[in-house]
Amino acid sequence: MNLRIVLHLISYLLGLEGTAIVLSALVSYQMNDVPEQTVTLLLCGGAVTVVGIIGILLTRTHDKVHAGLREGFAIVSLGWLLISLCGALPFILASKRQWYDAIFETVSGFTTTGASVIDSKLRLWDGRLLENGIEGLSYGILFWRSMTHWIGGMGIVVFFLAILPVLGIGGQSLYNAEVPGVKTRSDQFTPRVASTAKIMFMVYLGLTFLQTLFLYFGGMTFFDAVCHSFSTISTGGFSTKNASIAAYESSYIQVVILFFMFLGSCNFILHYRALTGLPLREYLNEEIRIYCMILVGSILVITAYLFLSDLTDPLSKTAYHHAFWNSLLAAAFQVVSISSTTGFSTANYAAWPTVAGVIILGLMFMGGCGGSTSGGIKCVRIILLSKFSISELRKSIFPRALQNIRLNGERLEMPVLNRVLGFFMFYMLIAFIFTVLLSFFCQTDLLTLLSASISCISNVGPGFGDIAPDCSFGWMSVPAKLILALEMLIGRLELYTMLIFFLPSFWKK
Amino acid sequence: MNLRIVLHLISYLLGLEGTAIVLSALVSYQMNDVPEQTVTLLLCGGAVTVVGIIGILLTRTHDKVHAGLREGFAIVSLGWLLISLCGALPFILASKRQWYDAIFETVSGFTTTGASVIDSKLRLWDGRLLENGIEGLSYGILFWRSMTHWIGGMGIVVFFLAILPVLGIGGQSLYNAEVPGVKTRSDQFTPRVASTAKIMFMVYLGLTFLQTLFLYFGGMTFFDAVCHSFSTISTGGFSTKNASIAAYESSYIQVVILFFMFLGSCNFILHYRALTGLPLREYLNEEIRIYCMILVGSILVITAYLFLSDLTDPLSKTAYHHAFWNSLLAAAFQVVSISSTTGFSTANYAAWPTVAGVIILGLMFMGGCGGSTSGGIKCVRIILLSKFSISELRKSIFPRALQNIRLNGERLEMPVLNRVLGFFMFYMLIAFIFTVLLSFFCQTDLLTLLSASISCISNVGPGFGDIAPDCSFGWMSVPAKLILALEMLIGRLELYTMLIFFLPSFWKK
Repeated sequence: MNLRIVLHLISYLLGLEGTAIVLSALVSYQMNDVPEQTVTLLLCGGAVTVVGIIGILLTRTHDKVHAGLREGFAIVSLGWLLISLCGALPFILASKRQWYDAIFETVSGFTTTGASVIDSKLRLWDGRLLENGIEGLSYGILFWRSMTHWIGGMGIVVFFLAILPVLGIGGQSLYNAEVPGVKTRSDQFTPRVASTAKIMFMVYLGLTFLQTLFLYFGGMTFFDAVCHSFSTISTGGFSTKNASIAAYESSYIQVVILFFMFLGSCNFILHYRALTGLPLREYLNEEIRIYCMILVGSILVITAYLFLSDLTDPLSKTAYHHAFWNSLLAAAFQVVSISSTTGFSTANYAAWPTVAGVIILGLMFMGGCGGSTSGGIKCVRIILLSKFSISELRKSIFPRALQNIRLNGERLEMPVLNRVLGFFMFYMLIAFIFTVLLSFFCQTDLLTLLSASISCISNVGPGFGDIAPDCSFGWMSVPAKLILALEMLIGRLELYTMLIFFLPSFWKK
Repeated sequence: MNLRIVLHLISYLLGLEGTAIVLSALVSYQMNDVPEQTVTLLLCGGAVTVVGIIGILLTRTHDKVHAGLREGFAIVSLGWLLISLCGALPFILASKRQWYDAIFETVSGFTTTGASVIDSKLRLWDGRLLENGIEGLSYGILFWRSMTHWIGGMGIVVFFLAILPVLGIGGQSLYNAEVPGVKTRSDQFTPRVASTAKIMFMVYLGLTFLQTLFLYFGGMTFFDAVCHSFSTISTGGFSTKNASIAAYESSYIQVVILFFMFLGSCNFILHYRALTGLPLREYLNEEIRIYCMILVGSILVITAYLFLSDLTDPLSKTAYHHAFWNSLLAAAFQVVSISSTTGFSTANYAAWPTVAGVIILGLMFMGGCGGSTSGGIKCVRIILLSKFSISELRKSIFPRALQNIRLNGERLEMPVLNRVLGFFMFYMLIAFIFTVLLSFFCQTDLLTLLSASISCISNVGPGFGDIAPDCSFGWMSVPAKLILALEMLIGRLELYTMLIFFLPSFWKK
C-alpha cells in the first residue's frame, strides 16, 4: 500500500476539518458565547489545521502516484476515523466531556447517526454534572456538533456516489447507472469522479441553503435554522434542543423538516437530474416509487392506530385520540425520520402501539434509497433481494426456466446481485455480532441492545427501550460506547470499506 | 396437477394417523383414564381411519400415474395441513379445547415446534376453566400430544431426506451428498427414495427406543419415558409436566434428554453411516464440527455468566452463584434445547443475564444441522452464507481472483448457493412479515412478538417476554394463534414447500 498518498489526502481532510472548527469559533464569537469557549474552539481548529498542513507538506511528492483499490479503501476508512478523532477535541476541551463521550458524539456526528450521549445526567471530566443537557452547550459547540453531520453527509454523497462505485462495493454501481463514467469499476480514479463530486456538492449545498430559508421564515432563529438544516439534509439527527423537533410546537417547521428528510433519503443523482430537467416520469424510478409506497403504507397504518388509540404522547404531550392531523403528522414525521435514518423526534414512538414499533424496526433495517445520505440496507437492495427470493421460489417449480432479475427494466448481472446478497448477509451478521458484544458490557434488556445495534449500523440514532427517543446513550458503559462508535463507522462505510482491513490477504503484497 | 394421486397418498397418511389415534385410545385404556376419554379417542381414531380408507378406495387407479414436482409439493403441504386438522379432533372432543386452541396445539405438535396453549388459565368450550394445565390432561391425550411430535419428526426425516432433495428445495441436495441416488434432482421419484426413507425410519425408531430405555432406568415412569422420547428425538418439546423437564429434579434425566436432543439436531444420515461403521473422522464433517463449536462456545459463555451471577432461577429454583455444576447443566440444557429447536426447559432463560438472551435468540435463528428433525435456518446454511460473504468481501479487493466456496472440501456450484441465499432472504422476510401480522392482533410488547415469530418459524417453542419458558401461548387472540400455526407450517416445510402455492404461475398449466 502506498501510505504516502493515503496520508497526503487525509491531511487535506484534516486541514478542511480544522478550518470548519475555526468557523465554529467565529460562530461562537458572533453568538456571544463566553470568550473561553470561543478561544478554546479557535485553538482546537488552529491545531487541527496546522497538523493537516504539516501532513500535506511532509507527504507531498513530485512523482506521479498510483492510487489503487487498497489506497482508496484506506483513504475512506482512515479518513473517517481520523477526522472523527480530531473532531472530538472541541467536545473534550471546550465542553469538558470525557474522551469516550466526545468520541461517541463525534463519530455519531460524522457518520450522520445522530445518537447522542448528552443528557443532564452526564458527568463531565472536571467532576461537575451537566445541568441542562443539550441546551447547556455553547453556541460554538452546538454549531460544530451539527457541522459534523453536514461534513459527514457531504462525505457520503461525494465519496459514495463518486468514489465508492470505482471501488465497486456492495453493488454500488447500481446507484450510478445514470452517471456516465462511474458505471464500470476500474483501479484508477478517473477525472470524471471529480466532476461528479462537484455536482453532488452543489446539490447538497443548494438543498441546505433552501431548507435554512424555509426554517428561518417559519420562525426559527437563524442559528437554529442553519443547525437543523445541517442535520436534516445529512439525515443526521442532532438537534439544538433536548426535546428535538418536539421543542418547536409548529406544524410548519415539522412539515419542512419532514420534506427535507425525505429529500435527504432519495438518490442525490436523481435530484441533480430533476434540477437539470429530467421528466418526472423518469425521475420516479423503480426504487423511489417502491420507497414511497412503503412510506405511505407505513404512515397510513400507524396513523390509523394512533387515531384509534387513547394515547397522549409522553414526549410531545399531543393527544392522538380521534385527532386526525395530530396522528397523521406524528406518524409521518417519525416514519420519514426513521426510514431516512435521521432520527429527529416529535414523539416517542416507543410508547405507541406495538404495530408502530414493528414497522419502525423494519424501517430502521431498510433505511432510505441508494445514493442518498441515509443509512441502512437501502431500499434498492431490499427490492433486489425480494426479487431474487421470488425468482428462486419460481426456480423450485420451473427448474429449467430462465429467471432474469430486472431493475428499471434492465437485466442485472449475477456479480452485481451477488454483491448485494453478500452485503445483506454481512449486515445481519454484524448487527448480531455487535449485539452480542454489547451484551457483554451493558446490563439492560434484550430489546434495548438489539435496537442499539440496528440503530447504529443503520446510522439512525434512537432505538427502543432505554434508548427510545426520550432517552440518550449517556448511561452506557465506556466499552459499549466505543463498540457502538465502531459499528456506526462500519455501517456508514457500507460495511466492506471497514471490514476489508480484517482480511489477512488485504495486508499481503 | 394430478389431484387423484395427491389425494390418494394423503388418504394413506390419514389412515395411518387414525391408527395412531386408536393406539392412543389403547394407551388411555391401559393407563386407566376415565372410560369416556378412552371411548372418545377410539371414536376419533376410528373416524379418521375410515375417512382415510374411503379416500384410498375412491382415488385408486390402475393407470400408471405420473407424480411430478407439483404433486410432490401438494402432497407434502396438503398432507401436513390435513393431518394437523384431523389430529386436532381428540383435543376438541376428548379434551374440550376450543377449535383454534386444538389446531394450534396439533400444528405445533406435527411441526415439532412444541409451543403450547395449554395452561391453567385456559377456558374450555364447555365453559369450565382448566384446573391443572398439562397435568390435568388424560393419559390418552398426553400420549397423542407427544405422538404428534413423533409422527411429525418422522415425517421430517423421511420427507426431507428422501423426498425433498428430489424437489430440490433451498439447497437440500447439500444434506444428501452422501446418499447415492438423491444427489441430483429429477422430476420423478425413484425407487431409491423408498430405501432411503426406510433406513431413516429405522434410525429414528432405534434412537427413540434407546432413549426410552435410558429414561425408564433413570426413574421415569414408562409412560413418561415414552412420551419424552417421542418429544426429544423429534426435537418437539411437549412434556407431560407443567414445569417441563424442571419437574424431574434429576441431573441424570436432564443429561440423557440433553444428549438425545443433540442427536436429534444432527444429520440423520450421519447417524446411519456412523452405525454402519463410518470412521469417526468422516462422521465429524464440517457442519457438525462447527455446530459443536458454536454450542460449546455458547455454553461456556452462559455458564460463566450464570456462575458469576447472584441469580436463583425462577423456574427451577436453582441457585447459580458459584455453583459450577448447576450453572453448566442449566446452560448446556437450554443451549442444546434451543439450538436443536426442541424447547424443553429446566430453567427460565428469559430471566438470565442479557448475554444469554442474545445468544439464545441467535441459536433460535440458526437451529440444528441440515437433515435433522430440528428447525431454523440450519447450521450448514449459516456456514455457507458466512463463506459466501467473506468471498464477496475478498472480491472487493481482488476483483479478478476466482473465489471458490467449498463444503467438506468440495466446491459448491452457484445454483446450490443461490438456493441457500434465497432461503435466507425468505426466512428473514417471513419472520418480519409475520411479526407485523401478529402485531395487528396482539396487544403486547415488541420483544414478545419478535420472539414469537422467530420461535414459530424455527419450530422452537418458547421465546421471550410473555412467551418465556414459564409462560404459554394460551393468552393470545384467536387470529394470532392461527397466524402462528401457519408460520410453524411454513417454517417446518422449509418455506418453499408452502410459499410455492402463492405463486400464480404454480396454478397455470
